[in-house]
Amino acid sequence: MPNDKPRIAVDAMGGDFGPHIVVPAAVKAAREGVAITLVGDEDSIRKELAANSAGGLDIDVVHTTQIVEMEDKPADALRRKRDSSIQVACRLVREGKADGVVSAGNSGATVACGMFVLGRIKGVQRPALASVMPTEKNPVVLIDVGANVDSKPSHLLQFGLMADVLSRDVLGVEKPTVGLLSIGEEEGKGNAMVKDSFDLFRSSDLNFIGNVEGRDIFTGDVDVVVCDGFVGNIALKLSEGLAGSMNKIMKRELKSSLLSKLGAMLSMRAFKRFKKVVDYAEYGGAPLLGLKGLAVVCHGKSNPKAMTNAILMAATFVTNKAHEHLAAGLDAHQSLSNGAGSGEHNSAA
Amino acid sequence: MPNDKPRIAVDAMGGDFGPHIVVPAAVKAAREGVAITLVGDEDSIRKELAANSAGGLDIDVVHTTQIVEMEDKPADALRRKRDSSIQVACRLVREGKADGVVSAGNSGATVACGMFVLGRIKGVQRPALASVMPTEKNPVVLIDVGANVDSKPSHLLQFGLMADVLSRDVLGVEKPTVGLLSIGEEEGKGNAMVKDSFDLFRSSDLNFIGNVEGRDIFTGDVDVVVCDGFVGNIALKLSEGLAGSMNKIMKRELKSSLLSKLGAMLSMRAFKRFKKVVDYAEYGGAPLLGLKGLAVVCHGKSNPKAMTNAILMAATFVTNKAHEHLAAGLDAHQSLSNGAGSGEHNSAA
Repeated sequence: MPNDKPRIAVDAMGGDFGPHIVVPAAVKAAREGVAITLVGDEDSIRKELAANSAGGLDIDVVHTTQIVEMEDKPADALRRKRDSSIQVACRLVREGKADGVVSAGNSGATVACGMFVLGRIKGVQRPALASVMPTEKNPVVLIDVGANVDSKPSHLLQFGLMADVLSRDVLGVEKPTVGLLSIGEEEGKGNAMVKDSFDLFRSSDLNFIGNVEGRDIFTGDVDVVVCDGFVGNIALKLSEGLAGSMNKIMKRELKSSLLSKLGAMLSMRAFKRFKKVVDYAEYGGAPLLGLKGLAVVCHGKSNPKAMTNAILMAATFVTNKAHEHLAAGLDAHQSLSNGAGSGEHNSAA
Repeated sequence: MPNDKPRIAVDAMGGDFGPHIVVPAAVKAAREGVAITLVGDEDSIRKELAANSAGGLDIDVVHTTQIVEMEDKPADALRRKRDSSIQVACRLVREGKADGVVSAGNSGATVACGMFVLGRIKGVQRPALASVMPTEKNPVVLIDVGANVDSKPSHLLQFGLMADVLSRDVLGVEKPTVGLLSIGEEEGKGNAMVKDSFDLFRSSDLNFIGNVEGRDIFTGDVDVVVCDGFVGNIALKLSEGLAGSMNKIMKRELKSSLLSKLGAMLSMRAFKRFKKVVDYAEYGGAPLLGLKGLAVVCHGKSNPKAMTNAILMAATFVTNKAHEHLAAGLDAHQSLSNGAGSGEHNSAA
């Protein structure tokens, strides 16, 4: 870290549109006070920087020669593309030259590079992907959304502890409520894994409110929802898909007659506010928690706003010393987490 | 069965509003040619029948003295409330006096009564709840949405076989496409249970298209989506919750100014069509498949339209001999289903 400002390494080649989307987004974050290191093909990056009048901003460029494609397998990306933008960006964090990394590239490869290049915080059994999602009221953190499958109760407890810190330090929630995602609110409802996790959560320092159901995620009445990555990934993609479908159907219906078109025009401001509430871009990416350094995984289709917000989220995470709080929280619960076995790591990537 | 018309036993006391909602819904189904047996408190039922001018329709009434409350435990409902409307309705099916049962009462109790009073079709390891959900195009069948947790691969295959019949016989899909719900499309993505199920599905006669993801459920590109009941129940409730939240937010925004109110009025028809697409009431209830006789579980908050549609769905199921097709399909795949062990039954109810 060259100075007090958080420095975020940004994978300029990631996402479906690469530097053309990523660089303007990074420039915008730099204007808001984040130090940026853009990692990728230097020529393309410089061209975009010039086009976005980035002179005078705290933006470094690190040239790399390889790109991880969307269809590359994570293990291959790790072994065969050592000079890829995402791997080099992670290395900058490991070497202390940046505080966090943001990528909209191949998610599996980003997770794998994060895991193996950065390494886990001591005591972390499995790093987990958290997703910050909009609700009717405050945003909710859903964890894990796909870094792990077949998790054990002790893993789930750690997911909850890490998301609790995210909710406090990044979203500013004072004492986040934490729920276990299940299929009934009463204790004793759920599958074997959730039932076995209940007592661990109850014994922890978390503000545990018991089981929550699928319908509770979007009410905004719970701040952190904990689940295995298989369930969380399905929930996340289902939500994205359903919100997208509903928007599409609504647009189609509103265009179906002159009258409804006129009506839609008059209600434009309402629609914009509606879109803002259901818009994932508001929050940007999914932070991979539990590593020595933060990695934020963005959607491949991220627009500039989503990328900028992901970079700002990473910066807030660093500024508010979330890492120290995370390590302390895990440490305080070591005896609980060790109870139920750490098991081997089943990466879903 | 007194004649060719399917006869459906309807739990008149079920749902948040009992006979007041259920009886008019049943009357409407009777007008469309379904023979009905209303089960519950005779006085209340007769009053509602009179209020809905049901004279001349093929509607029987069977009096019962007990009601399963929403907070009753399924096992208690089964043991201590033998004269409850839901248990008696199931008994009518077992005794051949009705062809199917529809209830909006306590879901867990309905599932338990179905399981224990009706019994399983020979060869069925675990009956499963199917949900028919609206999409951008054709409806999709999601199975299991909560009758089982910790399912095994052979259970999942049977869920797929049963939902395939539902899709053909009730929704009229000629050769339904069947997908396994997972967290990546490629074979080998998913948790241990899904990975172990993939080959079973591939070896079956199903029109198996491989893994599908959460985002694929609502595109309408797959007819049947198979998953464990823990995942399916979360997916179902999440969808209901998200669709409800989006509707609520949209309404709030549209009422926020005079201009947007006016716009909303002009677009009213479009909104109505939108609601129709995302409205679960279109399809009614969730059929519990694999029993000797059909039980359809409806949402406690079901409106009359949802109840009527659930009764019509049950009648179509019977008319099209779905039960025979279901038994035949399971029989043809017996060697596959027996491979991966049936295991003990973990009811989620």
